[in-house]
Amino acid sequence: MSEIKALMFDVFGTVVDWRSSLIDNFTAWAARKGIKGDWTALVDGWRGAYMPSMDVIRKRPESDFVILDDLQRQSIEPLAAKLGITGLSPADFDYLTKGWHSLDPWPDSVSGLTRLKTKFIISPLSNGNVALLTNMAKYAGLPWDLVLSAEVFRHYKPDAETYLGAAKILGLTPGQVMMVAAHNNDLAAAQALGLKTAFVPRVTEYGPHQNRDFKADGNWDYVVTDFNDLADKLGC
Amino acid sequence: MSEIKALMFDVFGTVVDWRSSLIDNFTAWAARKGIKGDWTALVDGWRGAYMPSMDVIRKRPESDFVILDDLQRQSIEPLAAKLGITGLSPADFDYLTKGWHSLDPWPDSVSGLTRLKTKFIISPLSNGNVALLTNMAKYAGLPWDLVLSAEVFRHYKPDAETYLGAAKILGLTPGQVMMVAAHNNDLAAAQALGLKTAFVPRVTEYGPHQNRDFKADGNWDYVVTDFNDLADKLGC
Repeated sequence: MSEIKALMFDVFGTVVDWRSSLIDNFTAWAARKGIKGDWTALVDGWRGAYMPSMDVIRKRPESDFVILDDLQRQSIEPLAAKLGITGLSPADFDYLTKGWHSLDPWPDSVSGLTRLKTKFIISPLSNGNVALLTNMAKYAGLPWDLVLSAEVFRHYKPDAETYLGAAKILGLTPGQVMMVAAHNNDLAAAQALGLKTAFVPRVTEYGPHQNRDFKADGNWDYVVTDFNDLADKLGC
Repeated sequence: MSEIKALMFDVFGTVVDWRSSLIDNFTAWAARKGIKGDWTALVDGWRGAYMPSMDVIRKRPESDFVILDDLQRQSIEPLAAKLGITGLSPADFDYLTKGWHSLDPWPDSVSGLTRLKTKFIISPLSNGNVALLTNMAKYAGLPWDLVLSAEVFRHYKPDAETYLGAAKILGLTPGQVMMVAAHNNDLAAAQALGLKTAFVPRVTEYGPHQNRDFKADGNWDYVVTDFNDLADKLGC
């Protein structure tokens, strides 16, 4: 494994706890504003709209790529209406959308990344857009060397262009890059293209709705308990 | 100036001392290898080929963009031949080209950037490609939040797409972004597009061949002595 030069991290669920962060943020914000609503249902429903909204973009030419912030902004209004949350202004919807920029890391994320950075190039490789990932890094103290995103390659994961684009833009072969994720399907896509793979379970990501990714279900190069365990195993 | 959110740095000459770094690197390397040559002339000539090589790309469609590493690799072979430096293998030319990935920062660069990072998003906005800038940051300890490059926007500075692309990809207006450079022409291009500007003189960049940029010659928002002076003036 000495050939690995760069570690690419899935972000939502792997590095940050999006569900608890958003529910806590929106619940406190709504209480201050006096807006009633089921914020847990909103967050779960919003995440549910995530894959279908990217699938629409996947069928379009690269020149029509739409960043995740804009997809999230489009899906939140009908979802709020469906859940009977009323009285939200355009600025309120913008606030909710920007919530994805300020997500809390898992307890091991910052310490593990800081150790891994001493030996490897570390970057997100996320469907989040560059601004979202940059603002999140500032908020959460994520010490990325650079910020790679579906936006840079104009393709959402698991499209091949995203994984192969990450290796190419760093001047590396796919085998010199390792994808780190809490999602087996992300790793399967990366492995099929020649990248190395590391699985980190995040079994509370979806709260009571978690129904997969409790454990590794592929032949990944590393299966670790958290980012510090990965740092141990990679000799950082 | 409280509206500034992100600082974009020119790199070659502004953040790193490319000329002394390359001359020292190549002179020591050639001595070890027993290769004779005028390495100072090679470095100065190579930098001289920089603008013309980008101008060729500027006239092509975006899909034909060529990264700086490849332009440098193309220009070094005929230049070495012209200077009578013989016996270099393809691997030697690759080594010389990779020299641009390992350049030493000016004495104030790391400390100044570290201070500026506490208050602003900091990124290179360089004609160097992403791999070059990432490897340089690892080598020199440059604490970028992200790595933006002409490569990401498929346009070399001073094309408008690069400056405006940097603002857009961060979700900012041009006026929320400040270009920091040791080159008045870089700042002029940025200012014309609505970006803020800061000039930092680097009067030894070109050694005895320096014939411009000894001082600010535009109406820049900040004129500072070095990056720590900029941090002082921006309240970091």
